[in-house]
Amino acid sequence: MVEFADTDLAGLMHFANFFRFVESAEHAFFRSLGFRIHTATDSAHTGWPRLEVTCKYHRPARFEQTLEICLRVEEVRTSSLRYSFWILAEGEPKHTLIAHGSLTIVHVALDTSTHEIRKAPIPLDLRAKLAALVTPV
Amino acid sequence: MVEFADTDLAGLMHFANFFRFVESAEHAFFRSLGFRIHTATDSAHTGWPRLEVTCKYHRPARFEQTLEICLRVEEVRTSSLRYSFWILAEGEPKHTLIAHGSLTIVHVALDTSTHEIRKAPIPLDLRAKLAALVTPV
Amino acid sequence: MVEFADTDLAGLMHFANFFRFVESAEHAFFRSLGFRIHTATDSAHTGWPRLEVTCKYHRPARFEQTLEICLRVEEVRTSSLRYSFWILAEGEPKHTLIAHGSLTIVHVALDTSTHEIRKAPIPLDLRAKLAALVTPV
Amino acid sequence: MVEFADTDLAGLMHFANFFRFVESAEHAFFRSLGFRIHTATDSAHTGWPRLEVTCKYHRPARFEQTLEICLRVEEVRTSSLRYSFWILAEGEPKHTLIAHGSLTIVHVALDTSTHEIRKAPIPLDLRAKLAALVTPV
Repeated sequence: MVEFADTDLAGLMHFANFFRFVESAEHAFFRSLGFRIHTATDSAHTGWPRLEVTCKYHRPARFEQTLEICLRVEEVRTSSLRYSFWILAEGEPKHTLIAHGSLTIVHVALDTSTHEIRKAPIPLDLRAKLAALVTPV
Repeated sequence: MVEFADTDLAGLMHFANFFRFVESAEHAFFRSLGFRIHTATDSAHTGWPRLEVTCKYHRPARFEQTLEICLRVEEVRTSSLRYSFWILAEGEPKHTLIAHGSLTIVHVALDTSTHEIRKAPIPLDLRAKLAALVTPV
Repeated sequence: MVEFADTDLAGLMHFANFFRFVESAEHAFFRSLGFRIHTATDSAHTGWPRLEVTCKYHRPARFEQTLEICLRVEEVRTSSLRYSFWILAEGEPKHTLIAHGSLTIVHVALDTSTHEIRKAPIPLDLRAKLAALVTPV
Repeated sequence: MVEFADTDLAGLMHFANFFRFVESAEHAFFRSLGFRIHTATDSAHTGWPRLEVTCKYHRPARFEQTLEICLRVEEVRTSSLRYSFWILAEGEPKHTLIAHGSLTIVHVALDTSTHEIRKAPIPLDLRAKLAALVTPV
């Protein structure tokens, strides 16, 4: 739901906050696969920084509107991943498209001794699950 | 400056917050031209919703880093406007590119009797100032 | 749930974001009474600015933790209202107290001709519902 | 300056964002003393979580208003610190009080082997600088 703090003085959701909704959906998607977007143990810190985002805004999102976020995995590479997303306002008789865009993210590991962040291959079990979701063209 | 509240648990600026910096620069740019991004009088409410944004992230932005935001007006149309932006970290001997992207915005007016938001031509004096800034190809 | 964007580089939810959770609970509470926190019609704009907030932080709130927010109406006056709130982390065998505090809010109306914001009595039907919730001492 | 993203649909700065301004001033204050609010080296991670905050809102803060934040160190204890803050809107002939409140923070260290966060004495050189700023009653 679009909360008061998500809006700005134009009376609508602030454009940067759409990415918060997309990210929350993305993290829920990772959890649904049995993975986490961010892990930190003694030996390994891994994460998924964003490489590129795009968003087209079709209609404003309003206070107290319930949004549905759809993600589609478009491409899985050795260490990166590209989604498309659609933000819809729930409604009758049908949902309305609010925004759509894309998100390219990269898997990285922090070397805890040198403190360098490096691109790291996506773990094979996660990559297999992601690849199975790519719609064949 | 990247503030504590701009960061997330990965220890870096959250990707959505880059757009807050770009927007602040954009509003300062409007003020420098003698205009405001948002006006509300009895007879007219006008604003500039975003139509499309893109951003490529080249390097992370860190806590307490001072950022410089560069905007370039790329295209001025009857009621819309497209910028490119570059986010640089201030440094010696030279600044470092953190991110770059684009922002397409549209001028709208709210009809205060019908409450409809409609695309509205950019005021001529503002359009002239903006058009003068477009770099000839 | 505590989302990635709610955290800061200390790896925990940023202290200002606790108020976003409280506010979301407050607005859901208003909806449960059949009212909205913010109304805007041609003749009347009303809202509930905050007069005073307090919060004591007992334990950090962590990424992906599910929080439960409890509100208790402590005092209902002619145009203002005071809550206590408790933020709990859901857990077994019992929830853990993360933070608690208070929120004093005031009902205001915007005079659409003079643009002045003035304190306004709480509508009687809402005040009756709120008063019924105050725990007798 | 109050930026667009700091406002909400009531047209004013969102109440939780006042704490972002206070925190930015606090971190600038720490830098002015030659310290940082957050340090992370191999052997030591230290920070300053918030124990308690209060804020009274006297007047709204509006888009594009320039705010001045004043901090006063009220009390320095072995591992905690209490400030008062005042948020003023810059103006002629005089500044206007927007909000004031207090912030109690505690110095902690993360044990990098056990991952426990523990209260830690304020370094003596910092404590001396802070104590020198407390106004005698």
